[in-house]
Amino acid sequence: MPRYRLVLEYDGAPFCGWQRQSARASVQASLEAAVLAFCGEQVQVVAAGRTDAGVHACGQVAHLDLVRAVAVETLRNALNFHLKPQPVVVLEASAAGDEFHARFDARMRHYRYRIVNRRAPLALDRGRAWLVPGRLDAEMMHEAGQRLVGRHDFTSFRSALCQAKSPVKTLSQLSVVRSGSEIELWARARSFLHHQVRNMVGTLKLVGEGRWSVDQIDAALAARDRAAAGPTAPACGLCLMQVDY
Amino acid sequence: MPRYRLVLEYDGAPFCGWQRQSARASVQASLEAAVLAFCGEQVQVVAAGRTDAGVHACGQVAHLDLVRAVAVETLRNALNFHLKPQPVVVLEASAAGDEFHARFDARMRHYRYRIVNRRAPLALDRGRAWLVPGRLDAEMMHEAGQRLVGRHDFTSFRSALCQAKSPVKTLSQLSVVRSGSEIELWARARSFLHHQVRNMVGTLKLVGEGRWSVDQIDAALAARDRAAAGPTAPACGLCLMQVDY
Repeated sequence: MPRYRLVLEYDGAPFCGWQRQSARASVQASLEAAVLAFCGEQVQVVAAGRTDAGVHACGQVAHLDLVRAVAVETLRNALNFHLKPQPVVVLEASAAGDEFHARFDARMRHYRYRIVNRRAPLALDRGRAWLVPGRLDAEMMHEAGQRLVGRHDFTSFRSALCQAKSPVKTLSQLSVVRSGSEIELWARARSFLHHQVRNMVGTLKLVGEGRWSVDQIDAALAARDRAAAGPTAPACGLCLMQVDY
Repeated sequence: MPRYRLVLEYDGAPFCGWQRQSARASVQASLEAAVLAFCGEQVQVVAAGRTDAGVHACGQVAHLDLVRAVAVETLRNALNFHLKPQPVVVLEASAAGDEFHARFDARMRHYRYRIVNRRAPLALDRGRAWLVPGRLDAEMMHEAGQRLVGRHDFTSFRSALCQAKSPVKTLSQLSVVRSGSEIELWARARSFLHHQVRNMVGTLKLVGEGRWSVDQIDAALAARDRAAAGPTAPACGLCLMQVDY
């Protein structure tokens, strides 16, 4: 069966997340319904990152198998047609080898977390960023973030629902950059634990507010206890930007 | 009466534009209703740019007079409270001199027009950009845009509804920059004619598509006839970014 690779963009707001859950709208179910409507095939679409409810994507990668081969432009256009009016689009469709697996073959996942740091509510970026009214020191957040880079036991930053076998992950990059009232956090790793990025962001915010010192990040990591780290940042600020293979 | 200056952000989608029109939602009417709810005063809010229906703003400037003086933080916070859930927010409120006039004192207005140049529909940028599926040559669009910079009779780029006394305006900057599938056009002038930016964008798109040569821009300008230029680009791509005084 020919295998296809898709690059996807979606607004996470109306979905319970990537993964199909009975009776709730998911990105996966929307795509599988679009495939069924297009060619009558019941497929399973497998994604690189099983994003949570409310998390966005600009560069999610997924694969699916079809019984009958189709031109990749046709696949992209037909899926986009059948996905309407849901905010899920296929940016690219390409032929993939039988051995390609969107989830297991991913070498690097890139996430961006957006904070808007101002008193005024959001008008244009509503649902696209976390509004933090109190002044944040982005340079201190960046410095603190460097304590998380590398191979660590991230138990303190892991959701209780996380199904990963090991809490040890290698965080390749964590950058915090301010531009005006906007703060972007970029996190890059081969793979992440459940809620890891949002828990890191929620913890770095404590440093940005001056409530935590940079050294407290080391202590939170060392504790290997979710209660030792900060709260989970809201889903709406997070976007899966890119997956490398 | 103390005068206040406001910097505003809004999503233009739900509004008939800046200006109050009977029985239709406008940004001006929303702000004036918020002032009334806050302090019981019936005011007129005057803006630097009377943006059209669907046009956004990140840095609109406006002024209003109150009978009773208030702290500027109180004014900002109270207006933001009463504006909810409408997508209009006051970014800053400050005291202004009696002589300050948001519209007549503006020395420079900065607009950004966003095009997303790809086949796939928009998921995250829906209502925030113009989707153009066919490949555009942004460098040629930039080159063509330089023919519009300077002092010209912009009759060919002016809406039939334009109320300006003279069609002669000085366009200080027109830049076209591509970043991936996104193309940003930045236009800067002391003032613009009605629909001028959107008509320039719609015309430069013809150059980007290869349907018009750069020289045809000169001919369109010289014709002083709206029919000689290209179509009006959609409102949703346009955002008033900044006003200088």
